[in-house]
Order: sequence, then structure tokens, then C-alpha cells
Amino acid sequence: MPQIISTIEDILAARKNVYQYLKPTPLYHYPTLSELIGANIWIKHENHQPVGAFKVRGGLNLAANLTNEEKSNGLFTASTGNHGQSIAYAAKAYGLKATIAVPEGANSGKVAAMRGLGAEVVFHGVDFDEAREWIKLVAEKKGGKFVSPTDEHLIHGVGTYALEILEELPTVDTIIVPVGAGSGVCGTGIVAKTINKDIQIIAVQSAQAPAMKLSWESGMMVEAEMKTIAEGLATRIPFENTQRIMRKYVDDFILVDDDDIKLAITTLLEHTHNLVEEAGAAPLAAAIQIKETIKGKNIVLVMSGGNISLHNLKNALKT
Amino acid sequence: MPQIISTIEDILAARKNVYQYLKPTPLYHYPTLSELIGANIWIKHENHQPVGAFKVRGGLNLAANLTNEEKSNGLFTASTGNHGQSIAYAAKAYGLKATIAVPEGANSGKVAAMRGLGAEVVFHGVDFDEAREWIKLVAEKKGGKFVSPTDEHLIHGVGTYALEILEELPTVDTIIVPVGAGSGVCGTGIVAKTINKDIQIIAVQSAQAPAMKLSWESGMMVEAEMKTIAEGLATRIPFENTQRIMRKYVDDFILVDDDDIKLAITTLLEHTHNLVEEAGAAPLAAAIQIKETIKGKNIVLVMSGGNISLHNLKNALKT
Repeated sequence: MPQIISTIEDILAARKNVYQYLKPTPLYHYPTLSELIGANIWIKHENHQPVGAFKVRGGLNLAANLTNEEKSNGLFTASTGNHGQSIAYAAKAYGLKATIAVPEGANSGKVAAMRGLGAEVVFHGVDFDEAREWIKLVAEKKGGKFVSPTDEHLIHGVGTYALEILEELPTVDTIIVPVGAGSGVCGTGIVAKTINKDIQIIAVQSAQAPAMKLSWESGMMVEAEMKTIAEGLATRIPFENTQRIMRKYVDDFILVDDDDIKLAITTLLEHTHNLVEEAGAAPLAAAIQIKETIKGKNIVLVMSGGNISLHNLKNALKT
Repeated sequence: MPQIISTIEDILAARKNVYQYLKPTPLYHYPTLSELIGANIWIKHENHQPVGAFKVRGGLNLAANLTNEEKSNGLFTASTGNHGQSIAYAAKAYGLKATIAVPEGANSGKVAAMRGLGAEVVFHGVDFDEAREWIKLVAEKKGGKFVSPTDEHLIHGVGTYALEILEELPTVDTIIVPVGAGSGVCGTGIVAKTINKDIQIIAVQSAQAPAMKLSWESGMMVEAEMKTIAEGLATRIPFENTQRIMRKYVDDFILVDDDDIKLAITTLLEHTHNLVEEAGAAPLAAAIQIKETIKGKNIVLVMSGGNISLHNLKNALKT
């Protein structure tokens, strides 16, 4: 795999592809949440995107950068989560065929959402790894583009939300970003540190799925047990290219317990009236954990998405 | 009271005041919701506004139109709902003092939200009518501006969301709007009917608070029992100026049961992943009620706000 040296120029170049279809999302200040934490709390509302998550920016940038051959043969990936919906959305926007592999028994609501966007959804294998390996082979055979969740065009696309944060709040001290495969925190780190190296970038993962944190800390690729309820943080095998970028740009990496994520979901419902998925609530859980060290600072929490299931929402409200 | 003859020019003129502080909200198409209803369903996401509701557009337009004397003496109104937060937000934006009367025992979360925006919140009286009458006298004594929830500048400000709908989806057939005091549906009707008189405007209220519907139907000012859980639809005494506009521009007025509103809240959580307050869910309940008559049409549901309480959300999820 070639060394990837993504820069802010790549992210600036992605803007035209992103804004052809999307508008900037709001960055709102929340007074009562600020009082609760003892810092000035802003939220970057990527949950306001179509398909409900930041990843749609990446899918659109990827689609814009395809060769004609890749375009004619279509996009192939595996996911029932936000990544799959993002690729389905981008394919629809560009009139391409998208084939998305999901394991047998995948969530029917999400399958319906991807099919609603026009994607072909194929059930294959008992888990995501099987589905992914299979669809990769299918893509090769058909000469189509297999889309990895950490493709550099995805990183450049999602990085555009960080440009929006810096434009609106140049005095930001700390940005707290949830980490699944790591595309969001990489885009954020590249943008923020290039503009002002003193901006602190904090990554967050669930304590019940710490592979990315353990890898970042040790400098090696460490697999770890994955038992989190947070689909957007559920990484068992770390990704090398995002790890490389994270080691350069991330200042701290916090683990939050799934129970604290549930509490954060309820707190966000109450104070911001936004529905948030587990990954999108993790930055608030992290801010609460480190409130003594961020006192009085300008903090941006990246609300990465809103796609929580009714089942998990009901569970969170019980805590 | 003078005859109010608001026109689309008033709403066009409000744009500069609204967009000085706000950005247009998204209008998203939802494939799975469309399948459910059998029509093309778009949602206008006014729940994405700061303070979580469409009314903030009106408050900003009102503040921009104050005389210097009114500015120096400040804004006075009564509300613990979206109207109060909108006036508090506008006052903060313009550096004005806002005094908001709430009845004894008002919801502490909403009081905190208004105070968080810098408003002075004063408890007075056993219900809203007492709080309102009292604050009106206070405003007169202090030479300040008492803000009625149907002030024409509010109607012109909120009407800007209808301009956004028509710009993005000129082929819209029907717009379904929840009605409390009526500012939203009036702004929508003025804009849509002026641009294309064939666009159908449907108003929605709760069957447990039908005063505005009964008044619209009879041509008289009819008070009615008010027992709805939907704060944004909870009108007991109709408003004359909005009734006058509604008689000119509204094609149909549907009542939906509170139980159907609760179901619509859950359906919207599932299909759009947006938290919605009762009033904001009422248009979907109405669309479901009339699905046979809107088959295959382009339908916009106005999601007026997201400010539901945790208590009511939990109740809705139980149904």
C-alpha cells in the first residue's frame, strides 16, 4: 500500500464535490450544556446531513474522483451502517450502480434505507468480514471500484466539516471526534493542525471496542475485543492508513464506557433536542470525563450522526 | 385592530433579517417514508434551527423592525415554548433585553433554556392567560414592545421557510403545516398561493384542541376545549389576524388525534432519525389520514420543531 500523505489542499479540493450536493451543517452553541460542563460547548451537527451522518461528504468526493471505467462498472462495498448509506447516496447522485454486501440477518430498516436510495443490497456471509471479503472479489471480477471505509477520498470529503468549524469558530481550543475507522478524526486533524497547531484534537472510542486507541498508543496494529453497542465505533481490526495520520495529528485518545454513551444520548436529547446515535454522543461523554481539564475553553463536539435504532434509543432512555 | 394585508413582498423583505443570523434549513426526500404513504414525501427541517423551531425566523425579523425606542426598552412576551425561546434568541442577537413571563410551575428545562439565552424569566399567574395579561401591562408601563405570537413581522419572518421550499421544489403539490397560533401556515399560504395558486395548503391541528379549525370553518371566532399534549398546537382562543389570512389561503384543515401524533413521532424517529415535537409530527399524522387523496403527489411536511420533553418522548415510544 502506498504511503498516503493527505493534506489540507486535498480537503480544500474536495469542497466543490461536496457542496455540489450538500450544504454546510450548523455549528450551534448550547448555553445549558456549557453550564453543565463548565466550558463553552458547540456542536457540529453532522446528524443534519441527508442519510443522517457525516460520511455522505466522503461518498460524494469519492464518486467525483472515479475514472470513467470505475463509473461504468459501479461501486462495491460492505456495510449496513452509515458508510453503506453514504455510498448509496453518492451513487444515486452520480447515476452509478452501487452494490452493497451485508451479512445474513442484517438490520432490515437499514437494508430498506439503502434500497430506498437505489442500491442493490446482497446478503452474503455470517459477518461483515465475510461480506467484505466476498464483495471485494466481486468488484475485482467485474472491474468495479471496491470502496474501503478509509479510502483517502473519503477522508478528504469528510474533512470539509472541519473547514466549516474553523471558518465559523477560529477560536476553537479543542475538537472532540468519535473514531470508528478514523476517517473523521483524520480529516479534522489535518485541517485543524494545519491552520493552528495549538488546536487540541481528541479522539474517542468505546471502552468496549478499544482497537484503534490501543493501536494509536502502541504504534502497532492491535486487534481488540469488540463488544460495544455503538455501531459507529465498532472497530475490531484497526486501519493502517488512518492510524498513520492519527499518530501525526491526534493529541489524546479517550475511552468512554457504553453506559456513559447512553447517558450522553439522553443528555443530548434533553439539552439539544437532537436524536443522536451512539458514536455521535461519545464526544459529550468524553467531555464530561475530562471536564476539569477543559474548563472555560471553546470545545466543539462532533455529532457525527443520528442513526440510532428505536430499540437502542428505548434502552438509552431507561438508564 | 387594523386590517393586515401581508404579501409575499413582506416575506421577501424579511429574508435579509433572517439570513443575517440563520441559514436555510434542509428539505430532504425520504424514500422509505414515501413508500409508506404512497406519495413523494419531503420534509422541511425547521427542527434544525437554533432553539429547535421555525419561530426563530420570526423573532429575528421582528427585532430588525423595532423602533429605536422599542429597542431601548426591550421586548416583553409570555411563553415557555418555542415563541419564548425565539424572542430570547432574537433579543440576544440584537443586544436587547427580553422579559418573558411564565406561569408559576412552568417547565424548568425551558425556563433554563430561555435564561441560557440571556432572557429575564418572571413567574407570574396561574396560567398563560394570566401571565400574558400581566406582562402586557408591564410592557405598556415601561414603554417596551409587547410581542403577540401572531405579530405580522413574525408571520413575515417565518414565511421565509416557504420561499425555501418553493425554490427547492417548485413542483410541490401539497404543503402540510401544523397550526398553533397560525403564523407558520399564514406565511406558507401567502408564499405558495402567490407563486402558484394550485399548490394545496393543508393546516393541521390536534382533535384535542380544535379552536383554530372550528373558527376557520365557521368564519367566526370559536373558543374550544384544549386538552392536547402538543404544546405547539395548544390554542384555546383563536387569533383574529391569522384566521383572516387562513381563510384566504388554506384549502383544507385536518384534525389528528393525539394518539396518532404519538405514532407519527415514532415513525419519524425510525424513518428520518430526527427528534420531533408533537406539532412537528402532526403533518405526518395528517398525511397518513389522507393518503388515498395524495397518492403519487409531491408532498412537503413542515417539521416545525424538535422541542419535545423527555417525558413526552418516553410516552410516545410506549405506544
